[in-house]
Amino acid sequence: MVRANRRIARRRRGATAIKQLAWRLPVNPFRPTEVLNPDQLEAVHGTSLQVLEDLGIEFMSPEALDVLARGGAQVDRDSGLVRFDRGLIAELLGKAPARVTVTPRDPARRLILGDKRMVFASVGGPPNVHDCERGRRPGNFADYCDILRLIQSLEIVHCIGNQPCAPTDLPAESRHLDCYQANLTLTDRVFLSTSIGADRVRDAVEMVAIARGDSLEELAARPGVISNINVNSPRRVDGAMAAGLMALARYGQVVVVTPFTLMGAMAPVTLPAALVQQNAEALACIALVQMVRPGNPVVYGAFTSNVDMRSGAPAFGTPENTLATIAGGQLARRYGLPYRSSNASASNVVDAQAVYESQMSIWGAVLGGANVLYHAAGWMEGGLTASFEKFVLDAEMLQMMSETLQPIEVDEASLGLDAIREVQPGGHFFGAAHTLARYETAFYQPMLADWRNYETWAEDGARSATERATAIWKDLLESYQQPALDAGVNDALEAYVRRRKEEIVGGRVSP
Amino acid sequence: MVRANRRIARRRRGATAIKQLAWRLPVNPFRPTEVLNPDQLEAVHGTSLQVLEDLGIEFMSPEALDVLARGGAQVDRDSGLVRFDRGLIAELLGKAPARVTVTPRDPARRLILGDKRMVFASVGGPPNVHDCERGRRPGNFADYCDILRLIQSLEIVHCIGNQPCAPTDLPAESRHLDCYQANLTLTDRVFLSTSIGADRVRDAVEMVAIARGDSLEELAARPGVISNINVNSPRRVDGAMAAGLMALARYGQVVVVTPFTLMGAMAPVTLPAALVQQNAEALACIALVQMVRPGNPVVYGAFTSNVDMRSGAPAFGTPENTLATIAGGQLARRYGLPYRSSNASASNVVDAQAVYESQMSIWGAVLGGANVLYHAAGWMEGGLTASFEKFVLDAEMLQMMSETLQPIEVDEASLGLDAIREVQPGGHFFGAAHTLARYETAFYQPMLADWRNYETWAEDGARSATERATAIWKDLLESYQQPALDAGVNDALEAYVRRRKEEIVGGRVSP
Repeated sequence: MVRANRRIARRRRGATAIKQLAWRLPVNPFRPTEVLNPDQLEAVHGTSLQVLEDLGIEFMSPEALDVLARGGAQVDRDSGLVRFDRGLIAELLGKAPARVTVTPRDPARRLILGDKRMVFASVGGPPNVHDCERGRRPGNFADYCDILRLIQSLEIVHCIGNQPCAPTDLPAESRHLDCYQANLTLTDRVFLSTSIGADRVRDAVEMVAIARGDSLEELAARPGVISNINVNSPRRVDGAMAAGLMALARYGQVVVVTPFTLMGAMAPVTLPAALVQQNAEALACIALVQMVRPGNPVVYGAFTSNVDMRSGAPAFGTPENTLATIAGGQLARRYGLPYRSSNASASNVVDAQAVYESQMSIWGAVLGGANVLYHAAGWMEGGLTASFEKFVLDAEMLQMMSETLQPIEVDEASLGLDAIREVQPGGHFFGAAHTLARYETAFYQPMLADWRNYETWAEDGARSATERATAIWKDLLESYQQPALDAGVNDALEAYVRRRKEEIVGGRVSP
Repeated sequence: MVRANRRIARRRRGATAIKQLAWRLPVNPFRPTEVLNPDQLEAVHGTSLQVLEDLGIEFMSPEALDVLARGGAQVDRDSGLVRFDRGLIAELLGKAPARVTVTPRDPARRLILGDKRMVFASVGGPPNVHDCERGRRPGNFADYCDILRLIQSLEIVHCIGNQPCAPTDLPAESRHLDCYQANLTLTDRVFLSTSIGADRVRDAVEMVAIARGDSLEELAARPGVISNINVNSPRRVDGAMAAGLMALARYGQVVVVTPFTLMGAMAPVTLPAALVQQNAEALACIALVQMVRPGNPVVYGAFTSNVDMRSGAPAFGTPENTLATIAGGQLARRYGLPYRSSNASASNVVDAQAVYESQMSIWGAVLGGANVLYHAAGWMEGGLTASFEKFVLDAEMLQMMSETLQPIEVDEASLGLDAIREVQPGGHFFGAAHTLARYETAFYQPMLADWRNYETWAEDGARSATERATAIWKDLLESYQQPALDAGVNDALEAYVRRRKEEIVGGRVSP
């Protein structure tokens, strides 16, 4: 099949060849799906404005309250509740750009959030790690670095999530420095910084500036850091998040705002109400970003799913999650903002459930027009574990989606009337000239799928996709190549980390 | 969440309760996706008309050639090639109805193909059977009946595929009679009849008429049989298929026309050309149906996927397959015809690959606006094996899709402003009045998914979704209840089968 931008990158090591697609930020050509009709969308929007006007959002940060008061919001200093006039919200939303770029040290790895593009970010945040050889364990820095190597080895993973696994063997107060350093030396990709507090944000900004050889002013003009601000739903932004948000905005870096609205737990049990709450929380934080620095890049994030009402356990990739993701996209587009979604599953193992829940999440993101998919590779167990096998499996699914989003080229050659004429009824096209000219790049070639017949597959060990994924991540780690980095930059990063660790240990600066 | 038509059917047996959705033909509310722009769609359409005018389709049936010649096509009796003027095609397409119903012996199980509804049919055709306890084996009649019991036990499986597994322990020439009898006694659902030759079609028609207590005239007025006509792509309709097609049309029953167009093998390697060939083949057969009986119900079927160009092995659920499915829907809608697609995978085992390929197929069908999904439950190994575990897993995925297609109700209660007001910032909604009034039916409750935390799940045996599926199909078989059937009808079916077997064994009538 003639398809645009088809290039196959191959990584060969000995007898092994892991084929993969070349780097590409796919452009979603589908008209976004609408699960809310225009009246319903306006009802959700309007009710969320009522929440902002009448009920308010709590900000647990005196500094944020100052900014919000100065910016025109009604601030109740006793309760921390902040109410926003709908005119103020509209005015501030009007300042946010529709398209955001994030540029890492290698400009070829620049991300575009907007323009119907999709960016796939790795898993971020799990305290645990799992692979089928070593089992489940608390995350450590060696695993952290191995996941970075997988990210760097797979062109479909465009971006590093915020701590692909927690390096629990490093001191909590300074591990973000080790993580940033590893991100900047083991990969050439954009990473999501930690957003807990202003100092961790500043460290990310300083270190990306060093890696790019840019000043902080240059970084503000051409952002290099992206981070996620979680709302402690319902209607609360804690002090560390508020500080992180304001720091990101002051440095001109990209703020992704994501309410954590699990229906039935942190949000109402009905989808429209959960969307109302999500939207009110998101708009309040977006407003604060725009008050700190008008025009600062900001992304509308959604994470509305449901819990199991018998146990309270969170569920992902459910029908409700999928519908919420699609509806969230309608809201983000209403405000002209880039949209963030997730690839999530609650399964405890890399099994059928993990895949169908992930597929529901990924398709929800595609139909919702998401511009960045968090946790796109490696998320397992509701985010409590980073899985090496799931990483490979997700990468295959993301590649398939990237190919599905490629435009179809229709012209005289691809319409193939001559090929159809050439082959007689009941014949076959294997040897047709039309086939021979195209067969090498005609179709997506999978990394993980096994299409051999049953007998051949069984004789070769009858390995499931999850078992094959183990072989692939080991192969990727073995053939990993560290991207080049200027020695001076490397030294400067080391020096920065050393100095900051001394400050933190010395208690001179709180982390 | 307030959702329309939410009813939960429960099957309880001892301590076990397998929850499932009640019978419902979901209505697809999504605007169909367009992967071909209007010009591209017209190019595919126009080129397929050129194929029909200039190259023709071979019909290996003198009787069909007679009908085609009388109907206005240009027939070459030496080659069997039939060419169709585009005006003739347009005229015949104009006669086919946009909406088709199929009514089995229980009118509550009536299928509607059209009106944006989706009908899910079980797997059909595999020579082998697999389950995780007994392994892979040639299909037999006991397994055939067990799969029927699973179909009858799961409300999401609306229809029986053509032989969910081949009962290879029964004589090939008469096994269709045993299958039809089992279909009509063990279930109350529509089944797809075998379409190989006129006699097997006639047997289906006669037996459904007996089961419904209707005459053949009544059956023609209110169809009860549906069958699939496969084109031996490229451009060949064999004698048995042509005879089956004409018999179905003469009896006024539903003809699904499905070219088998694997890109690179039986169709050109480019997607537009494969669509051109698929469309030409489908239109030729649809034209023949309309010549036999103008206005006869007919469904546009698509099965365009690709092969692995290294091995020639068929692949399903690929990006190309998904795009072809969506594009096929555009063609079917262009002609105002109901559309058939499939849930297919090439995996040899019920693993991650089986699921992501199936999900790609199912989502392709949804985005393509398919009205009937063949092989929706139980297909494995590229159609060579019916899997009991895959059956359960597919049923869960179909239920999730059915829920995802339910409309969202937005009103004052579901917008939940009072609920949001009731819960303070940082609180939770577990005990809110809004939650308590709705929590039992708020969310889809899965049959297979396990959302418990890792520790609880691990202590309970750490079973994967596939292992849990084994327990579910065993449970379903144990709690299966045979639907009531009038004793006289039962006797009449038995007598029919006995008489026909005698005729076939006696060689008086070819099967």
